[in-house]
Amino acid sequence: MLNDPDRLFPVEPTLRETARALYDSIKDLPILSPHGHCDPRWFAENQRFPNPAELFVIPDHYVFRMLVSQGVALTDLGVPRADGGATERDPQRIWQRFAEKFHLFRGTPSAMWLEHSFEHVFGLDTPLSAEVAQAHYDHIESRLAQPAYLPRALFERFNIELLATTEGALDDLRWHRMIRDSGWQGRIVTTYRPDAVVDPEFEGFAENLAALGEITGEDTTTWAGYLAAHRTRRAVFKEHGATASDHGHPTARTEDLGAEAAAALYDRVRSGQATAEEADRFRGQMLTEMARMSLDDGLVLQIHPGSRRNHSATVFDRHGRDKGFDIPGRTDYVAALKPLLDAVGLEPDLTIILFTLDETAYGRELAPLAGAYPALKLGPPWWFFDSYEGIKRFREATTETCGFYNTAGFNDDTRAFCSIPARHDVARRSDCAYLATLVCTGRLREAEAFELAHDLTYGLAKAAYNL
Amino acid sequence: MLNDPDRLFPVEPTLRETARALYDSIKDLPILSPHGHCDPRWFAENQRFPNPAELFVIPDHYVFRMLVSQGVALTDLGVPRADGGATERDPQRIWQRFAEKFHLFRGTPSAMWLEHSFEHVFGLDTPLSAEVAQAHYDHIESRLAQPAYLPRALFERFNIELLATTEGALDDLRWHRMIRDSGWQGRIVTTYRPDAVVDPEFEGFAENLAALGEITGEDTTTWAGYLAAHRTRRAVFKEHGATASDHGHPTARTEDLGAEAAAALYDRVRSGQATAEEADRFRGQMLTEMARMSLDDGLVLQIHPGSRRNHSATVFDRHGRDKGFDIPGRTDYVAALKPLLDAVGLEPDLTIILFTLDETAYGRELAPLAGAYPALKLGPPWWFFDSYEGIKRFREATTETCGFYNTAGFNDDTRAFCSIPARHDVARRSDCAYLATLVCTGRLREAEAFELAHDLTYGLAKAAYNL
Amino acid sequence: MLNDPDRLFPVEPTLRETARALYDSIKDLPILSPHGHCDPRWFAENQRFPNPAELFVIPDHYVFRMLVSQGVALTDLGVPRADGGATERDPQRIWQRFAEKFHLFRGTPSAMWLEHSFEHVFGLDTPLSAEVAQAHYDHIESRLAQPAYLPRALFERFNIELLATTEGALDDLRWHRMIRDSGWQGRIVTTYRPDAVVDPEFEGFAENLAALGEITGEDTTTWAGYLAAHRTRRAVFKEHGATASDHGHPTARTEDLGAEAAAALYDRVRSGQATAEEADRFRGQMLTEMARMSLDDGLVLQIHPGSRRNHSATVFDRHGRDKGFDIPGRTDYVAALKPLLDAVGLEPDLTIILFTLDETAYGRELAPLAGAYPALKLGPPWWFFDSYEGIKRFREATTETCGFYNTAGFNDDTRAFCSIPARHDVARRSDCAYLATLVCTGRLREAEAFELAHDLTYGLAKAAYNL
Repeated sequence: MLNDPDRLFPVEPTLRETARALYDSIKDLPILSPHGHCDPRWFAENQRFPNPAELFVIPDHYVFRMLVSQGVALTDLGVPRADGGATERDPQRIWQRFAEKFHLFRGTPSAMWLEHSFEHVFGLDTPLSAEVAQAHYDHIESRLAQPAYLPRALFERFNIELLATTEGALDDLRWHRMIRDSGWQGRIVTTYRPDAVVDPEFEGFAENLAALGEITGEDTTTWAGYLAAHRTRRAVFKEHGATASDHGHPTARTEDLGAEAAAALYDRVRSGQATAEEADRFRGQMLTEMARMSLDDGLVLQIHPGSRRNHSATVFDRHGRDKGFDIPGRTDYVAALKPLLDAVGLEPDLTIILFTLDETAYGRELAPLAGAYPALKLGPPWWFFDSYEGIKRFREATTETCGFYNTAGFNDDTRAFCSIPARHDVARRSDCAYLATLVCTGRLREAEAFELAHDLTYGLAKAAYNL
Repeated sequence: MLNDPDRLFPVEPTLRETARALYDSIKDLPILSPHGHCDPRWFAENQRFPNPAELFVIPDHYVFRMLVSQGVALTDLGVPRADGGATERDPQRIWQRFAEKFHLFRGTPSAMWLEHSFEHVFGLDTPLSAEVAQAHYDHIESRLAQPAYLPRALFERFNIELLATTEGALDDLRWHRMIRDSGWQGRIVTTYRPDAVVDPEFEGFAENLAALGEITGEDTTTWAGYLAAHRTRRAVFKEHGATASDHGHPTARTEDLGAEAAAALYDRVRSGQATAEEADRFRGQMLTEMARMSLDDGLVLQIHPGSRRNHSATVFDRHGRDKGFDIPGRTDYVAALKPLLDAVGLEPDLTIILFTLDETAYGRELAPLAGAYPALKLGPPWWFFDSYEGIKRFREATTETCGFYNTAGFNDDTRAFCSIPARHDVARRSDCAYLATLVCTGRLREAEAFELAHDLTYGLAKAAYNL
Repeated sequence: MLNDPDRLFPVEPTLRETARALYDSIKDLPILSPHGHCDPRWFAENQRFPNPAELFVIPDHYVFRMLVSQGVALTDLGVPRADGGATERDPQRIWQRFAEKFHLFRGTPSAMWLEHSFEHVFGLDTPLSAEVAQAHYDHIESRLAQPAYLPRALFERFNIELLATTEGALDDLRWHRMIRDSGWQGRIVTTYRPDAVVDPEFEGFAENLAALGEITGEDTTTWAGYLAAHRTRRAVFKEHGATASDHGHPTARTEDLGAEAAAALYDRVRSGQATAEEADRFRGQMLTEMARMSLDDGLVLQIHPGSRRNHSATVFDRHGRDKGFDIPGRTDYVAALKPLLDAVGLEPDLTIILFTLDETAYGRELAPLAGAYPALKLGPPWWFFDSYEGIKRFREATTETCGFYNTAGFNDDTRAFCSIPARHDVARRSDCAYLATLVCTGRLREAEAFELAHDLTYGLAKAAYNL
């Protein structure tokens, strides 16, 4: 057995019993995954996953960055090079390298997610190590060849009620259409992520604007046409199931400039002459514009700020984005969000979900804001904090100020499909551990805790994301 | 029973037994409340509290902001409008709305304070809900009509040894005089809070300065006269029992400009032409001036920085100050306090009590400062952090660096009179839980813990505030 | 008995048993102390320590700052004055003052270190208090006169395998030579700490540069000669055992200016005309230069940023450096380290160990950086955070992101020789408590925990510092 059935529950017997009872009441609820990065193509084509290395190592920046941090080269792990040059092609050798360094993951959520997948998805019951690496590889490989391990079969087995993917504004959403047209009942929806046409510092911004004009038939050389193009794309995304948009900016800055100033700023950024400050101001203005569109079309606005992307220039040059070198930084919310909140923060029918990579904001800024503004909800602990301790700190730092009902349930936010059940399980266990602590210390009645366990697992996500 | 008699104690039996023994030794000590916002008029007139909604909902920004955050309108809760326009007048309907949303408070200190009051002040023993709302209302209403529920009777029943209120520099302190002249023995003292005549950005600052001149007979058109006016008012406040002044600035900035530069700055801010930077500098200068006056008259200097007041322009315009939209922000202490500390920080007879809404400062800045400068003490966790987890984080982050004896005991800081026993009880339990943990992990001897339980509950506040 | 044999272990029996078993497996491992501030002269001359006050109070800023914070004068504790003026000379009176205030240390690591020394080094078994002060003094004094209490004897009794001291770039390293030439087997190595010739704001910087030139025979009036002089000194330090350099800057700023700009900047700072900004830029440039030299000579680069030294101007004027008035401030790492990391961060053979006094950086910046860049490791909790809660927060905030293997084992970082066993014992117990929690909550297998206990105590320090 790889996974302790009581893992993440408190050790003290009364607490453990309470946590287990709460967990038992919600562990079989279906999974709502309203924010993530799985590839819709998997479910459209329903082809088998190529091999264990492609499934667990090559695409997962949580995994390969840890190996890199201890001196393994990205090319030795098969991570593609930006110049298309040679990298390791043999999945068994990649797997072996991974297995040899598996001790690096001790105490990390990655270890927990991986071992949960190994056991509960693939039926392995001994720890991964250099010695058993090839046996494990062969075991997983043989399973991947079976129909029960095709993407749709796994989706059903994982008991996923809804899975949201994330597509850029220019995406043709063909895979989503293909899923819908296939008659398969799995519910997979898209999310509107327009960074490439909202962020003036994005690679190819000018070309992206032109493409946006073409795809929508709007004149994106004008501010009005540009906004109309967004509205058009949002409508198309809604037709493909989207209930939310998502925005990943370096800061939480917002602006509310007025139409004339905004139009002038758009001309600046369109010209390619914008300063870094102007680019940032433009991104800030667009959050407020997106919120106004949300008032009209009902999409939920998700803000994921604070990652300093591509911290290593060398890694970015050699391998491109999302290679484990995105590092959080301090993020201010109180001043940054004021223009947005002055514009739309009191709207009870708007939902803005805030995320953070700066945990100092939980108690100081985010919980006080969410505990006052009707439009705000707090998203779950994100990225580096999607973990037992991360969830514990989140609950401890926010609940006393904004309660549970200003939070938005769990997101797995993953591109590692097989980790979805594991991640939701960690969140469910962590929340039940927290609730049990409240019950046993007289801060919550037992009946309330059972209700909350259900809400944190299912009800809050369903409500916040209009699922 | 609404409140678990062992609430907030650790669950593990040895720890719980130790915490309970510590708590039993101090739970009946009288309450010292050296900082708060109760209305002295209550005790001067000793009239009955009007109704449950006026007592628990309408004046309590902790309560109504949470309802607002989930879409309830302030006007539907009877919160007065700045323009005097219509709001809900029916206290029973307000109470019903409150009861329907009571689940929002699950896991918050507000729930704990309210349920403690419901049970221990009013004798209710079932949880509030939509169904029982009117029965609870009637129950509380019938009690409020009884003599035992008049303000002075409750004050005595709560076993309050001293209650400090907070008045502006221009207040005539009539209620304090009326209490004193009444012959009633309850000890209620004022606190000097001169923000309206210290903060150039306060509404009506120029008029306030004129009024300060009038009230004191000093020429507040000069820097020397202005300082003399403060000295005069401080003396009057001392006559009305004050042992402390209090200052709520957006930052912890201090200055020590020298007389000439300070006088020139005073002319600027008096002219109404001061920039935001000059206004901030002036506030900073006044903290140092107040500290110098404290060296003469012995008043304790309390600094409560870091709240960005009135974050929502709309809520401020509609309803004015203190409506739950005050949001903390990052607060620097190390550079900000240096001018003040260079001036008076080594004075062993001065007491400056520092508060924070930025918990990151506890271990990084506040405990190192308080663990070195003789003039500094740390105030208890404030506002959003006046809670079990808030107190726990405070103790864990400060004790190892500045010990217990550089802290100043508990403040309830409340305008919700009936919550005073509840708040002190939460603090006592939380501190005993922390002490028990130290004892059972060999970090403190049991006899020391009993002494400390008494000090944290009573002795430190008495000493720090010269009570 | 002064020290609970189960101190710092969790209270719950299963957890405690697990923690104790882990601790038992590593408690007798030799001490590696790769970073600290003991005086090598003690071991060179092997003279007796003068008296209890000189051993425990006068040189220990942890101890005297706490007494100062409660109104005791530094001069009354025998702390030397900068002007050479009179201070208390009677060690027994200093000791008595210390004993009278010993309750101030309740709940602090200082209490734990002191009581561990009192019991385990000196055989005392009753708590220090005013009453027993002189008896304790006499007891310790009588022991200090015995051969078993000479520095080398204690070193051996403490089971220290290696002790690193810290010397300035201009130090002649005579004591290290004297130790080596004595034939004594104790392994004491130096560390290259060039702040006085790297920081343009250091007292006597110009003279220091001249001295550096003289000592090395290099022309330190040129950038090339200055760098060569560093290389020369590093080589000499290596001959005296150094495996690391150490750098204590106010910020973590780094630069990588290119040779020409760096040379021009060196001319500026050498001229004494540099602005504060230029001084800071120069310190930043030198970190990158030191890292490049590390690539050549293999010394580990330690960065200890974030202390605002000598916060009280008065204390600095009266008593000089290191008098307990060094206060941490916010420290940014993500932007600050980028030039250094772009230059050398991907080098697998380089080791840069990062420390912080700003705990908010653990999860937000340091763990993500160390979990990606091969050259980076995290140093243990430093200074104010070298404590049970400090270690707990460090592990909880970093392990989930960068694992254990991107950390560098424990440092005692002390000038209080007798506290070395106590400090390592606290770290060992704290780590075992953390590991036990992981085991009992299903986050780590027991066998892994035993391996990790050994690594955290011994293996990681040995590897990170090339011992």
